[in-house]
Amino acid sequence: MDKGRILLSVTGFNPQHWYELLSEQREVVLKPDSATDPTITYAVVWKQPPNILAKLPNLRAIFSIGAGVDHLFNDPGLPDVPIVRVVAENLTRHMTEYVVWRVLDHHRQGALYRAQQQNKLWQEPSQRPAEDIAVGIMGLGQLGRAAAEALLGLGFRVNGWGRTDRPMEGVTTYHGDEGLVPFLNATDILVVLLPHTPATEGIINYDLLRHLRRRNGLDGAVLINAGRGKLQKDADILRALDDGTLKEASLDVFEVEPLPKTSPMWSHPKVFVTPHAAASSDPEHLAPPMLKQMDAFERGEKLEYVVNRAAGY
Amino acid sequence: MDKGRILLSVTGFNPQHWYELLSEQREVVLKPDSATDPTITYAVVWKQPPNILAKLPNLRAIFSIGAGVDHLFNDPGLPDVPIVRVVAENLTRHMTEYVVWRVLDHHRQGALYRAQQQNKLWQEPSQRPAEDIAVGIMGLGQLGRAAAEALLGLGFRVNGWGRTDRPMEGVTTYHGDEGLVPFLNATDILVVLLPHTPATEGIINYDLLRHLRRRNGLDGAVLINAGRGKLQKDADILRALDDGTLKEASLDVFEVEPLPKTSPMWSHPKVFVTPHAAASSDPEHLAPPMLKQMDAFERGEKLEYVVNRAAGY
Ligand SMILES: NC(=O)c1ccc[n+]([C@@H]2O[C@H](COP(=O)([O-])OP(=O)(O)OC[C@H]3O[C@@H](n4cnc5c(N)ncnc54)[C@H](OP(=O)(O)O)[C@@H]3O)[C@@H](O)[C@H]2O)c1
Ligand SMILES: NC(=O)c1ccc[n+]([C@@H]2O[C@H](COP(=O)([O-])OP(=O)(O)OC[C@H]3O[C@@H](n4cnc5c(N)ncnc54)[C@H](OP(=O)(O)O)[C@@H]3O)[C@@H](O)[C@H]2O)c1
Repeated sequence: MDKGRILLSVTGFNPQHWYELLSEQREVVLKPDSATDPTITYAVVWKQPPNILAKLPNLRAIFSIGAGVDHLFNDPGLPDVPIVRVVAENLTRHMTEYVVWRVLDHHRQGALYRAQQQNKLWQEPSQRPAEDIAVGIMGLGQLGRAAAEALLGLGFRVNGWGRTDRPMEGVTTYHGDEGLVPFLNATDILVVLLPHTPATEGIINYDLLRHLRRRNGLDGAVLINAGRGKLQKDADILRALDDGTLKEASLDVFEVEPLPKTSPMWSHPKVFVTPHAAASSDPEHLAPPMLKQMDAFERGEKLEYVVNRAAGY
Repeated sequence: MDKGRILLSVTGFNPQHWYELLSEQREVVLKPDSATDPTITYAVVWKQPPNILAKLPNLRAIFSIGAGVDHLFNDPGLPDVPIVRVVAENLTRHMTEYVVWRVLDHHRQGALYRAQQQNKLWQEPSQRPAEDIAVGIMGLGQLGRAAAEALLGLGFRVNGWGRTDRPMEGVTTYHGDEGLVPFLNATDILVVLLPHTPATEGIINYDLLRHLRRRNGLDGAVLINAGRGKLQKDADILRALDDGTLKEASLDVFEVEPLPKTSPMWSHPKVFVTPHAAASSDPEHLAPPMLKQMDAFERGEKLEYVVNRAAGY
């Protein structure tokens, strides 16, 4: 058959819905017939079992289920074909919602108001305007830029940090190692939307958090991580919360997921936990553009959103 | 003296800061010398004592400390001079923050996640995209329009309801009595930003809430009131929450303020209480434009943001 088959290789969740949607246009299998199955032309993967792709002779491209691709680089037998990641308006909007929600809950003192309500306390704390607060976005890519846009619209000042120099209107941008400390020094609320790569692993540690701006009494720095858990050191975040380096944190991701019941994060009064749910990959919105890309690729067009292997994202 | 004096007449809070800022440019008194004090040309008021303004012979305009003017209409001796209300970017932004914060906390299931965290539950509920949710704004004025703009930017559908027909791009608008039920029928999250007038008093009652859209199981209608407490019937809201007509509510205002310790609102698991703090009048930002308006008025220019007495706002 001309088109070849899609290998849908997923661990950690039920691929049924993806299977149905991809099957509407192409033949889909959950396993190759053999390690060298010649009928497989594309792989759609989330944490595929190691080496499953290594010897497929006609594999033309790998599609990651998700914006991040760290999950597939764990595979020592990852073949040298283009890797396409997810960039989709639906996903981006979900992430923007999450970031704006968490920034506003910290900025508008949600935890304080919830405590006051418990104590039936009618009392208005002083409230800074957004223009006094600088949100710093680590990882000013597809997701970071959309979040920055929304935060600018609400009147926040916005800083951004990336690997390369990519200016954005209204945002003070920094990049590279030499830009990191100046970026942190100018930031009150740190939003992490980096990919997990060898260069970013463990970057959110105590040393980094110490460089965040800490201003006169009232406010303390805030951490929001919706990137990946491996970017952070859970223990360092707890230490920073406990010694006042950080005022509060919203964490969607953790070093170990699911977050173990024994983690102090769960019951820490300054931590808001969500279960890696900031922006989930919804097959309804993500499968159709994948199928479109396969068609376009076969017509000779270039694949979009191809991962830079050297950079790891 | 040419300019005359400002009467700063405030109850319920300490006017010190207002006094200092207004005094930088004009003479300010906290009480008239007599009921017919001829030196008073402007009044800057928040819940002024009744009849204090009634007989001032040279009073030229009254400035309300706050966007709402209901507080001064309680005065039976309110003289027939122009009443100017607050319209200011600083106030508008604070309100937009509050509205977006509360809409997102309901939309992104903040209460559910906080309960899950307490139970150390790593579990992802299904999450609708914003484009599936219609936020309906009652009172599409200065504050309502700015909130609508921000919500549109996040991808929500937005309905608006006003007294008169005032279209807004991207928003489905309704107006008047005949527009109310269609507006409610199309609304999932109701945001109230109406002024309190004879026509709007008690409008947020059980009967109205029953008309909100209620969709298939998962979601229920949500109420957010940041207008005035007298718009609502506290008991009706509680009834609607308890019988499932409403899923949750965020209330910044109440029939009686401060909210009495005996109110069931405080400990209701579906209610989020803030102490009339959605958008406070900050003298730093509001006094300078008032002084500017006085100067401009004396140069013969027209006053801006003059209240329509017949409509009551
Ligand atoms: N929690 C969730 O539900 C969820 C959902 C989706 C995605 N995510 C995470 O979000 C991440 C970002 O997604 P995206 O689509 O925005 O990715 P993207 O468009 O590739 O953007 C990545 C950004 O990170 C920067 N970056 C990468 N490596 C860096 C380094 N070593 N030093 C400094 N900056 C570096 C990039 O810099 P340049 O601009 O210079 O390239 C870019 O600004 C994903 O990788 C994934 O881990 C999480
Ligand atoms: N909680 C807080 O901290 C806080 C802070 C500031 C203000 N507020 C409240 O917010 C209110 C709104 O402020 P704003 O500056 O946006 O006022 P605004 O510009 O005068 O807008 C009022 C809106 O309400 C509509 N409206 C008035 N009476 C109505 C009626 N009988 N039926 C239907 N619609 C009616 C108006 O319709 P039209 O467009 O047809 O005129 C307009 O859209 C203030 O009055 C105040 O009570 C609360």
